[in-house]
Order: sequence, then C-alpha cells, then structure tokens
Amino acid sequence: MRDTKEDITLNSPFKGRGGLTVVKIGGNVIDNSETLYEFLKSFTTLPGYKILIHGGGKIATELSDTMGVEAKMVDGRRITDIETLRIVTMVYGGLINKNIVAQMQRCGCNAIGLTGADANLIKAKKRPVKDIDYGFVGDLDANSVDVNMLSNLLKVGLVPVFAALTHDGEGQLLNTNADTIASAIAVALSAEYETSLVYCFEKRGVLMDVSNEASVIREIKSSEFEPLKEQGIIAGGMLPKLHNAFEAIKNGVKEVYIGKADELGFLNKQSFGTRLIN
Amino acid sequence: MRDTKEDITLNSPFKGRGGLTVVKIGGNVIDNSETLYEFLKSFTTLPGYKILIHGGGKIATELSDTMGVEAKMVDGRRITDIETLRIVTMVYGGLINKNIVAQMQRCGCNAIGLTGADANLIKAKKRPVKDIDYGFVGDLDANSVDVNMLSNLLKVGLVPVFAALTHDGEGQLLNTNADTIASAIAVALSAEYETSLVYCFEKRGVLMDVSNEASVIREIKSSEFEPLKEQGIIAGGMLPKLHNAFEAIKNGVKEVYIGKADELGFLNKQSFGTRLIN
Repeated sequence: MRDTKEDITLNSPFKGRGGLTVVKIGGNVIDNSETLYEFLKSFTTLPGYKILIHGGGKIATELSDTMGVEAKMVDGRRITDIETLRIVTMVYGGLINKNIVAQMQRCGCNAIGLTGADANLIKAKKRPVKDIDYGFVGDLDANSVDVNMLSNLLKVGLVPVFAALTHDGEGQLLNTNADTIASAIAVALSAEYETSLVYCFEKRGVLMDVSNEASVIREIKSSEFEPLKEQGIIAGGMLPKLHNAFEAIKNGVKEVYIGKADELGFLNKQSFGTRLIN
Repeated sequence: MRDTKEDITLNSPFKGRGGLTVVKIGGNVIDNSETLYEFLKSFTTLPGYKILIHGGGKIATELSDTMGVEAKMVDGRRITDIETLRIVTMVYGGLINKNIVAQMQRCGCNAIGLTGADANLIKAKKRPVKDIDYGFVGDLDANSVDVNMLSNLLKVGLVPVFAALTHDGEGQLLNTNADTIASAIAVALSAEYETSLVYCFEKRGVLMDVSNEASVIREIKSSEFEPLKEQGIIAGGMLPKLHNAFEAIKNGVKEVYIGKADELGFLNKQSFGTRLIN
C-alpha cells in the first residue's frame, strides 16, 4: 500500500500501450456535456486498445418523468418493467451512446456504439424470479462475451462504446449493470490482451480518510484488502466495488483502477485514483 | 419490360449469392412487430452479404406527441430542430435499431446496429440554409461512405443495420433520408461487390394500372423509363423514386428492386416487385 505522500510515478507499471484498457463511466460524467467531452478527450488519448462502457444518468429519469413512467422499486431495488426497458433502450442505446460516439469521432477516435445485442457481443440470461421479479434484467456468466468478435472490432481499428444493455439471443433486450459489463469484458479479453480495468466514480479513489479527498490510497494489493476491511478503512459502498475488482484480478485482469473521471488523463502518468493489483 | 403474365422466373438474374443486397424498409414495416419479424425472417435468409437500412415510423411521432414536441414544418417540409433530433436519435438509433438487431439475432443472423457516426461509416454535411433552414439534416456526397470499414464488418460475418442518422465528424449527429443512405451505400459498395438495391414501400411494385395491385411491371430497363413517363404510367411519387433508382444503376449498382416488404422472400425466386436494370 502506498499513499499520496510517496512518489506516485515510481512503481505503478501501467502498461496501456499494446494492452487493453476497459473504462466504465457513470451518470455523473454523462449528465454534463462539457464534463463528458473533457473526459472523452482524455479517454481517446489512452494508448493501446480501449473499450468504454457507460451507464445512464439523469436523462433516463427525466424522460421517464416526462412520459409519466414511474420508477418501480421493490424492497429498495429498481425494477425494469417493459416501459422502463423501452426508455433505457432509447436513452442509453440511442441518445447517450450515439452522442458519445459522435463526440469521440470529433476527437479523431474511431468509436463504434454497441449494445450486447449488436454482433451478439454480450449474451445474458434474464434474472430468474425468486423473492423479487427484477423484470428485464440480464445476468452474465463466463461465456457471455464473444471475445473473438470483440477482438475483430479492435483489430480493424475501432473503439467499442457499450451502452449497459444486453440480450438473451431470443429477441429480448435486457438492462444490465454497467459495472458488471465492464468487469465481464475485461475478464474475457484478458485471455488475449494485458487488460487494465478502470472504474470512474464520484470520488478520487479509495480514501484513507473518507472526509479527506486528498487521502487517496495509491495502491492496494489483494493481500491488503482484508486488513483494510478489518481496520474499517474500506467500508460501505466501497466493499462490493473492491470485492468485484479483486475478483476480476483473480480471473486474469492485470490491474483495476478506481478514480474520478476528470482525472483519467493522469492514468498514463500513473497518478490516477487507486490501483488494485494482485 | 415484362408484365405479370409472363413467366417471372425466366430472365431475372438475381445474383445475391456472393454479391451484396442492400435493403431499405420504411415505417409501415416497422410499426407492426409481427410484420417486422416476418420481414426480418425473410431478410435474414437472403444469400450473400446484406445490409439493412430502416427509417422511422409512427413511434417517433407518438413520442414527440407524448413529450409535447411539435413537428415543425416549413412550406410543407419537415424541419429537424434540436428536440426532434434528440427524439429520432432515441427512437431510430436506440429503440427501433436495437430491437431490430435483437430480432435478427433471434433469427440466427449476426446483426450489428449502426448510425453513420459509428465507425465513421457515413459522414454527411449539414444541409446549407437557403430558402429553408432544414435544421439538423445531413446531405451525402460520393465520398460519404467508408467502403473499407463497412467491408471489414461484412467480412467478419456481420450484417449491418443502419438507422437513418449520420454525423458531420465534428460531433453533430444529423437526420438523413433513409432512401438516400441506402442508395449511397449501394453505389459506394458496388465498387467492391455486385450490388442489388431493394426499396420496400407500401405497393407491390411499379403498377401498369395504379388501381390494380396485380398489374406489377416485372422489369423496366433504363431506356424504357422515358416512354413510361410520357405514357403517364410512371407519375407522381413514383417519378423521383425511379429517377433515383436509375441514377444508382448509372453509378454502378447492378439492379434495383421496388416492392412490398412482406414479399421480400420471393426475391430469390425472382418474383419480387419491379426490377430496374440498365
């Protein structure tokens, strides 16, 4: 574990060049067109192969409100009914995805907007109904991602941009968690590429002191995860994030970064967020 | 010129196999999910390389109504203002395109949904403001289509499905006529493929007698176009359609078919609509 006081350029061997970087952004980046464009400029300058995964944002909620479609919640969990699926297909798969692609093209980056249905790239299973019927939500497994076809797109010089939608192969589109898609893609492609996975979220990284944004922990090894949990430094919403990150590393991903989207430009200089490694 | 009474299987040398078939469908096919699925089943069985281009349909109008966005018309021409562009990006680029892709995947056809912004496949110029400001509408020229990249997608086994949207390369999406996109793609790819262009519309083809759906003219040669105009057999909305079709043929497309979407299955049997040739 290294903290901010150390020389952050020293020993973080980010090897984007020749490798693959999979980056996930959330609603907070997407909702502001200037923030988004600045982020995309940084993203397009990353060396090597790259893939972007984006979630939704306020636009879907606003459209739902305008159309009078109420957000359905059961036990605090969001349900994707058929009306909500229509809205996320329009907003994630259409409006957000195509505008990101157009902005990336403006940056000279040959982006291609995709859902998991396109080129059958991500096949999911509709979540089985147990205590809760989540509706049209897709779960992924180890065989969900078509590595060969995704690799074909990378090799002809394209930069895939995924909306958080998949399909079941039987004609049904499915709403799917963007973090899960990012992780599944990174794990699957780590068989062919040295893969870095980057989660952008609202904080600068894993913080030593949650009230101090300057206290970013620069690096956490998998063996340090348990002690940090026991000390209460990693807690709350950070726990599942880091658990999933170390799972991805266990399954072949070289490193996972967690940090703030507007600092992505520092990734090449090894001073972006928190780096998780084996 | 041959009419329906002749043996329609005789001399229509449809050479889809090994060649490329570019098919355009309009709103009337899209608005009914059963009609659409039946059409897609026929489309996916076409031999050789294929590309689908779809327009909008009632869904965009319905969404505009729900959202309180009024259709803007100037001198009877539809204007694409920024709100309308948002709606067509959601509906054409998201809802319709991704559902078509999911249905084609259900048919075992490896479809990939695209706009002209994706992979920079179709770059347009915003229509210059003269008497009318059409808003965010894109016009195409002879260099608009990236033949190499589109060919790359075909060669890795994908079936491109285009929504009627393009971009200007500077970050701006543009609403673009689906017939024009179909024609531009067919002309551009005819340099590499023996290309057939198929326009599906509400009639069974060019009719000898406009009140008789059985009077489909099976074949029209370019030399027969002028006489048919003079006789008043080709008139009204049919005139620009056929004019554009013969322009495409003049620019390298092998043949153009005009007919009804639900009869596309007959294309291989050479009994689909009206065939236009040089």
